[in-house]
Amino acid sequence: MKSATRAQVPPFEVMTVLHKVSELRAQGREVISLCAGEPASGAPSGVRRRGAEVLTDGTPMGYSQALGLTELRQAIAGHYQRSYGLDIGYGNVAITTGSSGAFLLAFLSAFDAGDRVALARPGYPAYKNILTSLDLHVVELDCGPEQRFQPTVEQLEEAHKSMPLAGLVVASPANPTGTMFAPGQLAEIAQWCADNGVRLVSDEIYHGITFGQQAGEETAGWGGDCSWATDRSGFVVSSFSKFWGMTGWRLGWALVPSDLVATVDALAGNLALCPPVPAQHAALEAFSEESYAEGRVALAEYAEARTVVLDHLDELGWVDVAPADGAFYVYARITPVLGEYADSRAWSDALLEAEGVAVTPGVDFDAVHGDQTIRISLAAGKAAITEAIRRVLRFQGT
Amino acid sequence: MKSATRAQVPPFEVMTVLHKVSELRAQGREVISLCAGEPASGAPSGVRRRGAEVLTDGTPMGYSQALGLTELRQAIAGHYQRSYGLDIGYGNVAITTGSSGAFLLAFLSAFDAGDRVALARPGYPAYKNILTSLDLHVVELDCGPEQRFQPTVEQLEEAHKSMPLAGLVVASPANPTGTMFAPGQLAEIAQWCADNGVRLVSDEIYHGITFGQQAGEETAGWGGDCSWATDRSGFVVSSFSKFWGMTGWRLGWALVPSDLVATVDALAGNLALCPPVPAQHAALEAFSEESYAEGRVALAEYAEARTVVLDHLDELGWVDVAPADGAFYVYARITPVLGEYADSRAWSDALLEAEGVAVTPGVDFDAVHGDQTIRISLAAGKAAITEAIRRVLRFQGT
Repeated sequence: MKSATRAQVPPFEVMTVLHKVSELRAQGREVISLCAGEPASGAPSGVRRRGAEVLTDGTPMGYSQALGLTELRQAIAGHYQRSYGLDIGYGNVAITTGSSGAFLLAFLSAFDAGDRVALARPGYPAYKNILTSLDLHVVELDCGPEQRFQPTVEQLEEAHKSMPLAGLVVASPANPTGTMFAPGQLAEIAQWCADNGVRLVSDEIYHGITFGQQAGEETAGWGGDCSWATDRSGFVVSSFSKFWGMTGWRLGWALVPSDLVATVDALAGNLALCPPVPAQHAALEAFSEESYAEGRVALAEYAEARTVVLDHLDELGWVDVAPADGAFYVYARITPVLGEYADSRAWSDALLEAEGVAVTPGVDFDAVHGDQTIRISLAAGKAAITEAIRRVLRFQGT
Repeated sequence: MKSATRAQVPPFEVMTVLHKVSELRAQGREVISLCAGEPASGAPSGVRRRGAEVLTDGTPMGYSQALGLTELRQAIAGHYQRSYGLDIGYGNVAITTGSSGAFLLAFLSAFDAGDRVALARPGYPAYKNILTSLDLHVVELDCGPEQRFQPTVEQLEEAHKSMPLAGLVVASPANPTGTMFAPGQLAEIAQWCADNGVRLVSDEIYHGITFGQQAGEETAGWGGDCSWATDRSGFVVSSFSKFWGMTGWRLGWALVPSDLVATVDALAGNLALCPPVPAQHAALEAFSEESYAEGRVALAEYAEARTVVLDHLDELGWVDVAPADGAFYVYARITPVLGEYADSRAWSDALLEAEGVAVTPGVDFDAVHGDQTIRISLAAGKAAITEAIRRVLRFQGT
């Protein structure tokens, strides 16, 4: 019986590594996992408390509206006012099943089969794989450390000239590199997209986790420009998974351009019915001062872990690192220390086997150069990172 | 800026009606809602209890594996042993974000753009709309009350002859009609699909809610044949939403044919990361004897409500009803009572306005004949249905 050609996307490598980690742990091995982009802290305590309450106090748990509970959409609009000074009507806010659900709705509503959508390489692999499975043509822009792994307007002009782009996906802070656009650069790109009829999808899920603004203002630690500050013809995608640590809850959102709200509403109703309702009720607590404060505590821990890694880069012998401005990753080329191993995947497998340290090989993020790179997640915290580096140095024989 | 042509699917009409219901209720109107396919009882008490516990006892709520928690996949395999006597390896069980997530993965993994996929009309509108948004060609099989609204092998032969089908979606019990295949008919269709290289997607989410088998055996009330009893080259889709009343939790599953497990795993990791983790933990309690018993209590209530409707059909003057064997719907043609109203949508709007009774107009389920039909849900229970019928009779002036 036939299967779909377009569905032949590579497995998400990090899921494979996570699987190996569970297997080793099931065998009783102690493993430091630096592979998943998961905050160790989990959801804010108020969110967990509220989540437990609504399951036992008789709150109805039937379907919500397709775009989510009005109260939560309003709370997210309030978050944009509070953290960005942006005035956004809740009618443009779509609650989604994780940012994954938001990408699916954005891509389906904006692009037809065969449309060209550009993105940075290295980048989050699901962008490319979702686009491919929907018959979209992915245009990879090679973005090296010299440009902080972020695309430039010059690259967009070049790609658009050969054949028009329908869309562009950007992420700042980015996964796997943690790098951010320089101030003003996202605005420049958003304006270019608006001027050229290119639908921008700005992944802002790591907002709130940036290392330049840790002290001071009430909104300290937020950071990151929102593409809607410049132009609202594209999508902004965000999530409760990162700053609020709610990965497994599968709750995210999109800011949807006004011309696509009705389309996204209809698609969401048909493709998902609605986002998870218990999580929606719980997430109302995400915007309390207590929850923001807990997020900032987690941020301080990532910052400490980041410092430990950056301080050891010379000793580790890893190269081409663009120090992460945000998110909780460090992405490095490990060519100088590969030694007997053919590529970073073999190296990572051997490291996991020998030292019980799990990292993500770069093939997940860059099909061209990723055989020489790895991503490590800082989310495990300073103590785990410190011990992991000790083991990596022993593994490398340095 | 352009938007996608393929994304222009109609809004899910029932969501529109639900929205009107919320608006009326917000204005202080008392409304009997017979429109959504939502059990009023909600999740089993053990599920809600466990759901609240795992949010406060430190259970990690990070990503699960893409296909779900192994323990829950095993529990679902156990359910097939218990309720169908089928031996299914948990490796073929994919936990999904509602049955919606399962349909998306099934359609994407099995069908390429342009492939022909057949389904019954009337039918659940999301099948058609998801398929359309993925560039698939929907072949509607006109299924009237004389064939219990279910497709026949003869219709399939006919559709396949003109141009080969790649897939077929069936549902038994069906939405909106509640009708089931006659004994042996699903097996016949599954065998035909296997013989003709047509990938079957068997929607079995209403299993457990059937009215022929309410007493007796330990598995009483289960009922409904599983297509995997005949052949395992197609998908079975199911959910915690109906028998277990967990609509808003967004948790379902698929039985995935072995040749597509790796593809579905990779797609799920990329498109969804994983199904909601708090719900997965809670759902482990769905297979306790206490939870099955609570499901049977709800079933008894639907059965009472069903009897009330069937007993009033003559008086209501509705026609072409194939008495529901399962699910919690009655689907009827209301041509004789339309009166001054142009179609069933106008009639339904007027009924909601005049009497505060919400039903779903048939255009959602049948673009050809649905302007003359309505679906009512029995899930609101006997008392609500009895009062609703009183109001409908008053509205009809009968």
